[in-house]
Amino acid sequence: MKGRIDIDRLKNESSKIRELLIETISKTGGHLAPNLGVVELTQALHEVFQSPKDKILFDVGHQSYVHKLLTGRKENFSSLRQKNGIGPFMDPRESEHDPFITGHAGSALSAGAGIAMANPESKVVVVIGDASISNGHSMEALNNIGGKIKNLVVILNDNEMSIGKNVGSLSRFFGKLIASDLYLNMRNDIKGVMNKGKIGKKVNRVLERMEVSVKQFFLPLSISEALGFTFLGVVDGHNLDELVEVLEKAKTLEGPIFIHVKTQKGKGYHFAEENKEKFHGIAPFDVATGSVKSSGKSFSKVFGDTMVEFGKEDKDVYCISAGMIKGTGLGEFQEAFPERCIDVGISEGHGVSFAGGLGISGKKPYVAIYSTFLQRAYGQLIHDISIQKLPVKFIVDRAGIVGEDGKTHQGIYDIGMFLQIPNFAVVAPSSAQELEEVLKFSKEYKKGPIAIRFPRGSAYEIPGTENFQLGKWKTIREKNKNLYIGTGSMLKEILSVEEELKRRGLEGTIIGASTIKPLDEEFILSQFKKYENIFILEEGYRYGGFGNSILDYINRENIDCKINIIALDTGYIPHGTRDELLREYGLRGEKLVDRIEGSINANKK
Amino acid sequence: MKGRIDIDRLKNESSKIRELLIETISKTGGHLAPNLGVVELTQALHEVFQSPKDKILFDVGHQSYVHKLLTGRKENFSSLRQKNGIGPFMDPRESEHDPFITGHAGSALSAGAGIAMANPESKVVVVIGDASISNGHSMEALNNIGGKIKNLVVILNDNEMSIGKNVGSLSRFFGKLIASDLYLNMRNDIKGVMNKGKIGKKVNRVLERMEVSVKQFFLPLSISEALGFTFLGVVDGHNLDELVEVLEKAKTLEGPIFIHVKTQKGKGYHFAEENKEKFHGIAPFDVATGSVKSSGKSFSKVFGDTMVEFGKEDKDVYCISAGMIKGTGLGEFQEAFPERCIDVGISEGHGVSFAGGLGISGKKPYVAIYSTFLQRAYGQLIHDISIQKLPVKFIVDRAGIVGEDGKTHQGIYDIGMFLQIPNFAVVAPSSAQELEEVLKFSKEYKKGPIAIRFPRGSAYEIPGTENFQLGKWKTIREKNKNLYIGTGSMLKEILSVEEELKRRGLEGTIIGASTIKPLDEEFILSQFKKYENIFILEEGYRYGGFGNSILDYINRENIDCKINIIALDTGYIPHGTRDELLREYGLRGEKLVDRIEGSINANKK
Repeated sequence: MKGRIDIDRLKNESSKIRELLIETISKTGGHLAPNLGVVELTQALHEVFQSPKDKILFDVGHQSYVHKLLTGRKENFSSLRQKNGIGPFMDPRESEHDPFITGHAGSALSAGAGIAMANPESKVVVVIGDASISNGHSMEALNNIGGKIKNLVVILNDNEMSIGKNVGSLSRFFGKLIASDLYLNMRNDIKGVMNKGKIGKKVNRVLERMEVSVKQFFLPLSISEALGFTFLGVVDGHNLDELVEVLEKAKTLEGPIFIHVKTQKGKGYHFAEENKEKFHGIAPFDVATGSVKSSGKSFSKVFGDTMVEFGKEDKDVYCISAGMIKGTGLGEFQEAFPERCIDVGISEGHGVSFAGGLGISGKKPYVAIYSTFLQRAYGQLIHDISIQKLPVKFIVDRAGIVGEDGKTHQGIYDIGMFLQIPNFAVVAPSSAQELEEVLKFSKEYKKGPIAIRFPRGSAYEIPGTENFQLGKWKTIREKNKNLYIGTGSMLKEILSVEEELKRRGLEGTIIGASTIKPLDEEFILSQFKKYENIFILEEGYRYGGFGNSILDYINRENIDCKINIIALDTGYIPHGTRDELLREYGLRGEKLVDRIEGSINANKK
Repeated sequence: MKGRIDIDRLKNESSKIRELLIETISKTGGHLAPNLGVVELTQALHEVFQSPKDKILFDVGHQSYVHKLLTGRKENFSSLRQKNGIGPFMDPRESEHDPFITGHAGSALSAGAGIAMANPESKVVVVIGDASISNGHSMEALNNIGGKIKNLVVILNDNEMSIGKNVGSLSRFFGKLIASDLYLNMRNDIKGVMNKGKIGKKVNRVLERMEVSVKQFFLPLSISEALGFTFLGVVDGHNLDELVEVLEKAKTLEGPIFIHVKTQKGKGYHFAEENKEKFHGIAPFDVATGSVKSSGKSFSKVFGDTMVEFGKEDKDVYCISAGMIKGTGLGEFQEAFPERCIDVGISEGHGVSFAGGLGISGKKPYVAIYSTFLQRAYGQLIHDISIQKLPVKFIVDRAGIVGEDGKTHQGIYDIGMFLQIPNFAVVAPSSAQELEEVLKFSKEYKKGPIAIRFPRGSAYEIPGTENFQLGKWKTIREKNKNLYIGTGSMLKEILSVEEELKRRGLEGTIIGASTIKPLDEEFILSQFKKYENIFILEEGYRYGGFGNSILDYINRENIDCKINIIALDTGYIPHGTRDELLREYGLRGEKLVDRIEGSINANKK
């Protein structure tokens, strides 16, 4: 018992929560290790604070599963990350206990500061990991919160791990110096000395005269204090007594308050404790063995393997990742060429400009970032890359629908983003071989930056997609009347429904348009007029996309024809499997054919 | 004499440089105060380092005028910021001594790190101001540089001022704590004590045993050291002896190195010393009196005045600025409602998400950011604002061509940016009154976010633009055959050439389309077919813009007509006056009419 709080009951519950997490995520996949690490912390938060009056935000909502379990979503928890089920991150549409959407790392401190200012009667608690807190967005927030937002409590969830390895000095600064054994020992030793004898007393008097408390002087490395926070020290994140005590204190004190909580990622499931990175975000796995069913070779792996080859033959090839070395397929490149593989952590903006510095110096930098996270570097893409036409290569992984990570993570804006920024070549290879060829092409491409996008999931081959040339589309099948131009993943989708198109009398010429920009003007000028119905198929948000760029071109060239754009008409795509969502939004299978048939019928009117 | 360097000669030169800066900028306008502050620093840099072998970058290139003078651009310096003249920032196309473009704050550390890695034989020096260094982009860079990039020297140019007031704790942290008198005194006092007697020696022995030097222990507040830099202390930025000494040391030591230089903004011109903010970036002025010719009431001022009204009548109205309170017209609002006016400093991403937190809590936040700087928050606009459809109002100031600030600062991407992000209403008022009306409308608009863009410069009225309704365009003039749809600034431009259009037989209906999104579908459906030639006029980059969104709509609706888009076909617009550039790029005057005539003739073929 700790005041009104029954610690023993909580301890009992925490094992049950862990069991449920392991059992559920073994079936659904998801972020297991981060959640196993915050069980006690989340319990303590909900005991001490009153959600939803008090607001609890988890930066990167993937550490909010325990929070979901404790706020009425236990019954439905087996639907985690599944279509129409519990979402992957925090989402106000899912629960009044989720104060703000938190999918991308780094936004919760800023949003929390706004919420705190608007709700002075509530306490706002933001839990943020040691990788997220050194992100530029978080630093900007800390810088603005310090000394000002009195009802905000920041909890640094330090599991000394982050997604991959800790990168950068700042996370070390936050995560280690404050509590380093060296530092703490030294402090105690000196304190011991100072409490004895005359000189010690004199030092104390000097400090007093300076109106600086000994404590202040001896905790100089707390960056949080320097930034204007009240620092409540380092707490064991698995000790409920300690947690409740410090949170009770935080509740009563005027803030902003900073608490450094040490947790163990994967706590309570030995496979996850031993392999934190594997179990950070994991596909369904076997609880008894910890093993995951292996899937086919992904496009990321095709990229990574090609980079290893490049690395051997060309010393000017560098790879840059933003905290996602393994996810982007760069694991082997990193091992083989550590000095040319730079993981900047969750710092997309820095990564892009840094690559600009390499590019302007004659190097060949490949920046591999998921489509959704590249949004964070839009300003740098314009200012540092486009204006100077630097030969930097952008590997836009997880482009298109990403599936279970849902609405905050869909990679559906990159086509429009790159088309709207001058000087980029934009390519979406449609097969594994084409990706390899595009990568080879890009290595020696010096006219400007190039963006290469491909979807999440297993790679495949498509006959007829060989011999890549920038700006040249390929005819895979030749027929009359209907023209289907598929870019990237959509070539496979349209080929997959060929039989059904034929059955409905909708067959047509099929073009693999791996180059999105520059357009194959020769093809458009010579071929478009031959067809009654022209379809542009792209896996991305419609506006500003590939189809729109073709519309602009044919309007300028006075080519009089109707274009049917098959793309995503909405930007709000929830979670579900990639297959479910592609079908639901009319980019795969029967619904894709329905959509095509509907357009043709509408055009006839 | 300091070794091989003749300090007296440099001192003599520095006064001449200041005279030239004052004389030139009084005629051209430009960033006077920042450059007066870095005269000696820049001289010392060029004495000690060998540019272009060594690379010198000024973050925010507007502090690079002295650098330009010292690297062969003195003769041509009177053309500063003028068309075809010396540019406003660093630019590799201008000189081999400019290693990278640096217009926006915060990118130079990242780019410099890349350049340093690619050029291990060179020293790379990045000079960065106290406002820029606490920007998220810079923090990400510092975090990644620390301990790693050995040939990089970071110079914090601390003028304790930044653009407006110092905001945020971090700039205080960097700028003051390290060298605060309190801290330095305290340190010396305690050192004095420790050098005497037994206990002092014992403390010293403890430190030695811990392998921590006394110096290390007594400089614990140097964030740079904690981040993995070698800290070379605080230097008087106007003392050439000190500067040369510390830079010589930096040149020989292994880095990364961090030097904290204290400078006085405006140094040597008393008006600028006394009014640093006014003379930060200034229009042409009178040298003898320091006075600037006043220009008319700007759109920014219309916005600011309206906000003051709103502030009085509605306690839920908040204004957020990113280091540009005065520039965005919020000076009076800040004075009247300091608690509801939040200047986040150069932290656009944080500002946007912070406003999201206010918006989700029922407040009415107005985020006023220049178009070019809003690029830095693209990720947050999607993730925090759009997906949650939050009622945040974005005031996109300096939209369109900005003039003398040139290519890095043109506000030409925002239309495409906002059209490509779902759920935004996008409005470009075409007169002062319309802006006021749009602002009134936006205050109670709750369906989602709204972006309101307007150009730099004086506001004006246009009869017929009264009574704003979202999604409704206004007919200003009705004629046959030709249809001119102008959004925002382009309504005035097309009206200004009416006479000339008439003279050439090109007159037509003129529409004021203040709403860019949603489209006035009723108008399009009922009116477009009536005209032979339809022109869409927008002051922005063509791709993904207003015209393209109309093309998409008429293609979908099977409206068979040719659209002529009058917009910017290039994203690379250099510096010059706004008037010169509007004319040159065919958005004003004779060239606009030529362009229209050319399109009509081409359509006839």
